[in-house]
Amino acid sequence: MNTATLPPLAEIKARMAKTNDLFNVEVFGRRNFDALDHIYTADARILPPGAPMIAGRQSIKEFWKGMVTSAHATSAALSSVDVMEAGDAVIEIGRAVLTVEPPGESAAQLEVKYVVFWREEDSDWKWHVDIWNSNS
Amino acid sequence: MNTATLPPLAEIKARMAKTNDLFNVEVFGRRNFDALDHIYTADARILPPGAPMIAGRQSIKEFWKGMVTSAHATSAALSSVDVMEAGDAVIEIGRAVLTVEPPGESAAQLEVKYVVFWREEDSDWKWHVDIWNSNS
Repeated sequence: MNTATLPPLAEIKARMAKTNDLFNVEVFGRRNFDALDHIYTADARILPPGAPMIAGRQSIKEFWKGMVTSAHATSAALSSVDVMEAGDAVIEIGRAVLTVEPPGESAAQLEVKYVVFWREEDSDWKWHVDIWNSNS
Repeated sequence: MNTATLPPLAEIKARMAKTNDLFNVEVFGRRNFDALDHIYTADARILPPGAPMIAGRQSIKEFWKGMVTSAHATSAALSSVDVMEAGDAVIEIGRAVLTVEPPGESAAQLEVKYVVFWREEDSDWKWHVDIWNSNS
């Protein structure tokens, strides 16, 4: 396998963690949806449960804006389960714990697992294909 | 990107189609679960909706045996939406139409989308990571 185009895996993992933190802290915590410019590639695709595939970062931003707002989500803590290099890309298996806090209700947590196909774009490691589902 | 280790994409796609057909015709059509030896890598992982991740081909075979039997599933027609090379691997976005025919009920079809991380093993192109969810 060619890994000549990739920096050491430890460095990639650190940069992936930075992207994953942005998703939690900026998108979910601060509802700063423009942070998604640094999380998804321009022509990324997401495959959400219960809906058809969505293509393109602008449409993906609309999806997350609606989802975070309507679900009263306040955090999405992501953790990598496995990170596999493939050429100049990376495939990650991960788990996410979503916290939702609807007004007048107690906070609830949902466990989600996901697979992300990562690519480097504009010096950021970003999600190029993103699919997830619930454990329950 | 290095594709030197890979044959032409058209050839890979043809071999992927062969694997996908096995899943439909042998696993779902004939309930020949040993065909899964030619579909999943030995250390494959699946991420099914509504259940935790399952690792290893033997456990994956048990999963599909239970799923196909209990759901009275008779076919799983897979079609590639996009096939992306990455080093010596391939990432596929696809859609599946599942047909279930419970005794005494009319047949129903379910639409599913998926992402598969493919690797070559023992001269077959196989599913190394397999995750899916429903469109509805």
